[in-house]
Formats: sequence, structure tokens, C-alpha cells
Amino acid sequence: MKIAALIFDKITVLDIVGPVEVLSWVPGAEIVWVGKAKGPIRAAPTGLALTVERTLDEVSDPDILIVPGGPGVRLLLEDEAVLDWVRNVHARTQWTASVCTGSLLLGAAGLLRGLDATTHWNSAAALESFGAKYREQRVIPRGKIVTSAGVSAGIDMALWLAGKIAGDDAAKAAQLCIEYDPQPPYDAGAPSKAGAAVIERARATVKDILARTLAGA
Amino acid sequence: MKIAALIFDKITVLDIVGPVEVLSWVPGAEIVWVGKAKGPIRAAPTGLALTVERTLDEVSDPDILIVPGGPGVRLLLEDEAVLDWVRNVHARTQWTASVCTGSLLLGAAGLLRGLDATTHWNSAAALESFGAKYREQRVIPRGKIVTSAGVSAGIDMALWLAGKIAGDDAAKAAQLCIEYDPQPPYDAGAPSKAGAAVIERARATVKDILARTLAGA
Repeated sequence: MKIAALIFDKITVLDIVGPVEVLSWVPGAEIVWVGKAKGPIRAAPTGLALTVERTLDEVSDPDILIVPGGPGVRLLLEDEAVLDWVRNVHARTQWTASVCTGSLLLGAAGLLRGLDATTHWNSAAALESFGAKYREQRVIPRGKIVTSAGVSAGIDMALWLAGKIAGDDAAKAAQLCIEYDPQPPYDAGAPSKAGAAVIERARATVKDILARTLAGA
Repeated sequence: MKIAALIFDKITVLDIVGPVEVLSWVPGAEIVWVGKAKGPIRAAPTGLALTVERTLDEVSDPDILIVPGGPGVRLLLEDEAVLDWVRNVHARTQWTASVCTGSLLLGAAGLLRGLDATTHWNSAAALESFGAKYREQRVIPRGKIVTSAGVSAGIDMALWLAGKIAGDDAAKAAQLCIEYDPQPPYDAGAPSKAGAAVIERARATVKDILARTLAGA
């Protein structure tokens, strides 16, 4: 089971590490870290330096494609090399999945027209500009395309996917391996729960990080 | 607020990416990626290549130290350079935190003697060998030391920490930024919930990954 994890400069690293961590505990999983050019990239906002190990040309037929999001997605939405690769790979995958604003890339590639889909709550309008119908839902499977909500939602998505691929017991074992028994000390993880003041604060933070991250890009 | 994220070869990357992702959305956070030697390391089991950007010598007074776990922790438990650094940095931090088997490193440094603490459920005995009392609890603060359970527990720990550092509203905004509204499709994330068959399967997976990862190390 070959899993292509697409990574790029200014990626939100939890978007991809969450699902890949889950799937890497499923027996037989092989992760391929793929991007436009081999070499270092930098996540945002964490600043973590990662390495792309395979170019797009070198990865043509993964069983699963995972497209994460982050500020850097904005720089790829008109990048025909990346969009072509996404379309071509998707034609052969068993599953094509996105986390957070990774769904904008699927949308830009024309894969979400007329579909219910999700993304980071703050990018719902951008998602709909590609012809998808945004829903505030954690994980949305439609055929072989699975979109998931912002950042941390990729963990839930990958557990769902692990169940489909390897069965419920393998998925449960992966959940136990990463001790995923969430107990957040607050209940503010979705716009419908956070309240107006927290939403406003989060929106300002996202705006600030996008501006600082993409300045000069 | 300077946050030292200790990274090392064969780290479980979600251990550190989870909490750092949370904290990086808190205004004023500055993340420092520190390790024994500058340059590339490789996470396990995901295989992600990361880069250490600051040596131990270069980071002496972070406000917060976060120590993650993973197979590679086993290779550091008698490494006096690392243990000395942990002790010296801890003497100056505002908070010293661990995720997963990162607590074994705090234990090996002598910081957990006589304390309630936690770790990955499969390493409870190892933790107790350092004089700590293991508890199956998600996040355990004791004075300025905060230990958290396996892998994904660092996200909950960091939200708790964000609240202490920056207040409840800042922590809630960080939770909303990463859309952390967990909805795992299974309820098998803790030994007390998973059942004997899933525990056995997870234990075999962990054993296999430890063996494969540490072979030749």
C-alpha cells in the first residue's frame, strides 16, 4: 500500500503528519514524501524544515494520495504541473484524500465540481469557488475522494480510511498505537462551538499568519 | 515565548508536531528546533526527514522545553550530553513538557523521581524504572513538569499549556485554528477502552516497529 504524501513549502505540517502517522502503523503501509523538487521545504507556522524525497515525475501510481493544506497551498492553485499531477495520480488511486485547505488543490484540479466537500472553516468560500458545496463536517467521503476539515481533522480521516483499507481491528490498533483518546480541555474546535469572540480572534490569527508567511513569496 | 522542540533520529514526529502546531498559533510563540547535531534526521515509523537547526549548546534558556518520544528515545537514555542538557535547561524553564516516551528522557535525567507521570501506555514499566508513578491519564501537570500520554496526547497537553501561558481565549482560538474538534470513528484510543484483542495487535505492531527501526542502530 503506497501512500503519496504531497508536501510543499509553507505547508501546515500537522495536516500531513496526522494522517501519515495513523496510516504508518497499518501493516504494509509505505509512505512516499513527494513534492515539486527534491530538497528542503519549510512548514508554516511551525517553521519545521522537511525534505522532499521524490519528485512528482517519480511518483505516478500511489494507492493513496494525501493532499495537505497550509498557507503554501495558495501558491499552487494555478501551478499546472502540480494540478496535472494531481489529476493524473487521482485517475489511478484507490483513495484520494485531502486535509484542511488541501481540498482547494483538489478543487483547482477540477476534482470537486458538484461534490459535497470540506476544508478549513475559514476557507469555505474559496472551496466553493471551485464548484464544491462546503459542509461543516469532519470527514466527507464521496466515491473515492475523501475531504477532511482543518488541520487536526486528518487524524480522524485517516482512521476512517484505515478501517476501509485494513478493517476495523487494524484501524483500532492504529488508534491505540497513537493513543488517540482525545480530551481537549476546551470545546472550541469548530465554529459552531467556539462563539463569536473566539472565532474573531482565530480569524485574525489566521489572517496574520497568512500575511506573514506569504509576504515576499 | 521561546519554545525548544527537541528532535532526534527515529522520533515519532506527531509527538512533537502536535503540540508545536498548537503553540505556534499562540501570539508571540517562537519555535526552536534543537538537537544533538545540525542536519537531517529521520522520523519513525513515518520516515519523514526533518532538519535539526540548533545544537544543544546554542539553546540554553527556552521558556518551554518539549521532549517528544519515539523509538529513538531508547538511544538517548544513557546519553549524558543530552541528559545534562535536559537538566540544565529544565532548571531555567517556565514549563518542561513531554509527550509519549519523551517522559523516559525526563526520567533518565532524574526529573520524575517520586512524581505521578505518564507516557505511552506500552512503556509504563520503563517509566516506573526511573522512580515515577505511571498513571493512565491524558495530561499530568506536577509543578512545572507536564507529562502527556502517547503520541496524539501532546495536542491536548499543548492546549492546556496554551491556556496557562496565554489565557483561555487564546487557547480556544488555537484550538479553532487547528479545527480540533475530534471525532474518531472508533473508541479504541486507550488500553482501558480498546479490548484485549486490539491491545494485543497494537502491542505486536509497536514491537515490530521498534525492532525494525532500531535494527542496526
